[in-house]
Amino acid sequence: MGGAKSFPSLVILLVLVLDCSATPISKIRAHPQPCKRMVFYFHDILYNGHNSKNATAAIVGSPAWGNRTILTGKNHFGNMVVFDDPITLDNNLHSTPVGRAQGFYFYDKKDIFTAWLGFSFVFNSTEHKGSINFAGADPLMNKTRDVSVIGGTGDFFMTRGIATLRTDAFEGEVYFRLCVDIKLYECW
Amino acid sequence: MGGAKSFPSLVILLVLVLDCSATPISKIRAHPQPCKRMVFYFHDILYNGHNSKNATAAIVGSPAWGNRTILTGKNHFGNMVVFDDPITLDNNLHSTPVGRAQGFYFYDKKDIFTAWLGFSFVFNSTEHKGSINFAGADPLMNKTRDVSVIGGTGDFFMTRGIATLRTDAFEGEVYFRLCVDIKLYECW
Amino acid sequence: MGGAKSFPSLVILLVLVLDCSATPISKIRAHPQPCKRMVFYFHDILYNGHNSKNATAAIVGSPAWGNRTILTGKNHFGNMVVFDDPITLDNNLHSTPVGRAQGFYFYDKKDIFTAWLGFSFVFNSTEHKGSINFAGADPLMNKTRDVSVIGGTGDFFMTRGIATLRTDAFEGEVYFRLCVDIKLYECW
Repeated sequence: MGGAKSFPSLVILLVLVLDCSATPISKIRAHPQPCKRMVFYFHDILYNGHNSKNATAAIVGSPAWGNRTILTGKNHFGNMVVFDDPITLDNNLHSTPVGRAQGFYFYDKKDIFTAWLGFSFVFNSTEHKGSINFAGADPLMNKTRDVSVIGGTGDFFMTRGIATLRTDAFEGEVYFRLCVDIKLYECW
Repeated sequence: MGGAKSFPSLVILLVLVLDCSATPISKIRAHPQPCKRMVFYFHDILYNGHNSKNATAAIVGSPAWGNRTILTGKNHFGNMVVFDDPITLDNNLHSTPVGRAQGFYFYDKKDIFTAWLGFSFVFNSTEHKGSINFAGADPLMNKTRDVSVIGGTGDFFMTRGIATLRTDAFEGEVYFRLCVDIKLYECW
Repeated sequence: MGGAKSFPSLVILLVLVLDCSATPISKIRAHPQPCKRMVFYFHDILYNGHNSKNATAAIVGSPAWGNRTILTGKNHFGNMVVFDDPITLDNNLHSTPVGRAQGFYFYDKKDIFTAWLGFSFVFNSTEHKGSINFAGADPLMNKTRDVSVIGGTGDFFMTRGIATLRTDAFEGEVYFRLCVDIKLYECW
């Protein structure tokens, strides 16, 4: 009975982990199948003047009307942030990191929240060695948004693809957790 | 007579719209034919301390000797700008936008004007849904300059190519209009 | 005798010039052969408040706790630098430049030195015309590190590949010399 019961749960769990994109399956099928697919979470803790020990990100640029400690008004337009965030396999900030998400983002619209991202997933474990490089627009108000996988090194040599981002959680303007569903369509 | 006269005008208009690159045709022919080609304009209105309502871009970084309200001397070396610009089909700032150009550029040379660009064209209309991602050097003093199309999403899934930029107009150091001739050579 | 002696030296020199990556050959062989391979050096002279004439780079962003004249503590976390550096064929800063390395980097980790790079090699000589665009994480403490070649224009139309970076020399926190071993795997 226990075994019979746990089987469907496992299936549901797998589906959740494999598909954080919430994209209808029919839409995915229109595209070719990915040659590799991976789901990760990363955790961004923005420096706010009081959390220098835990912060993994800091504002490094702002428009003339802002500063670099507090995100500015006008939907943070012009704030540029540099980050070095832990990557985990599940949504728990305290899980053992499997790599680091390193890069930058900036808010780029006055009327709503939108951002633009350039970053890498850097792996150096027995599981994965190498990096995956990403770039693209991130219209934060959309439930999911796609950025490009523009290249990779090591285990991810020359790869290309799409990464679907979803904001999994946030707390105030300090903690942001992103789920990243990486679908690679060029594998070498 | 009217019809006969308008025909060549239409041809000229089409040529102008299809080829804002001003590249000799012989040079284009040396390359393979694009699988898709599109021409757009985008309009950058830089915040200067007095135009916060209309501005679509703001200086967010500057070298130690500059500030973030006025572009610095030394050919703006080190000024970093974040933008969210309307994209139009013709060169009229007031035409209905068909998308947004979102990203950043910075001036990177002391002796002449050169810049570097990372940005996306973001479309969400009946015509186009998805994004095209660009990166590359922009030697502004050249009549035309090429940047890379490094990826795309949605209708532009996995695309790659070249975008030829041409400064179509500028007014002082506030308004810049760019013509972008996008030639995609990898279409999925 | 002179000729017999100089031959092996030439071979050694060629090996040094062709392979600044110091990667074991066996590892390279696991990958396909590059369709093009080039080795260059570039020279970054960071503005420090006293060298405005010679500087080729300047800090343009910093976290709230830093400034834009001196690299901050915490391993320069959050410092963003814009550069326009000469590219040379050998490791001599005073050799005739063959192009310019233009782009930006930022330091992105609090506990050790790591950076992230977006830049282009811009060539306009009889030898090469066009640009090569790069992006990726740069874990500076590693002897060599790979970034992605995400595109190219002109002679490097649509190219993709890997660039192996090695810090060839540095002086204080002002002069940095990088050796770049460019291996292109997609040539058009």
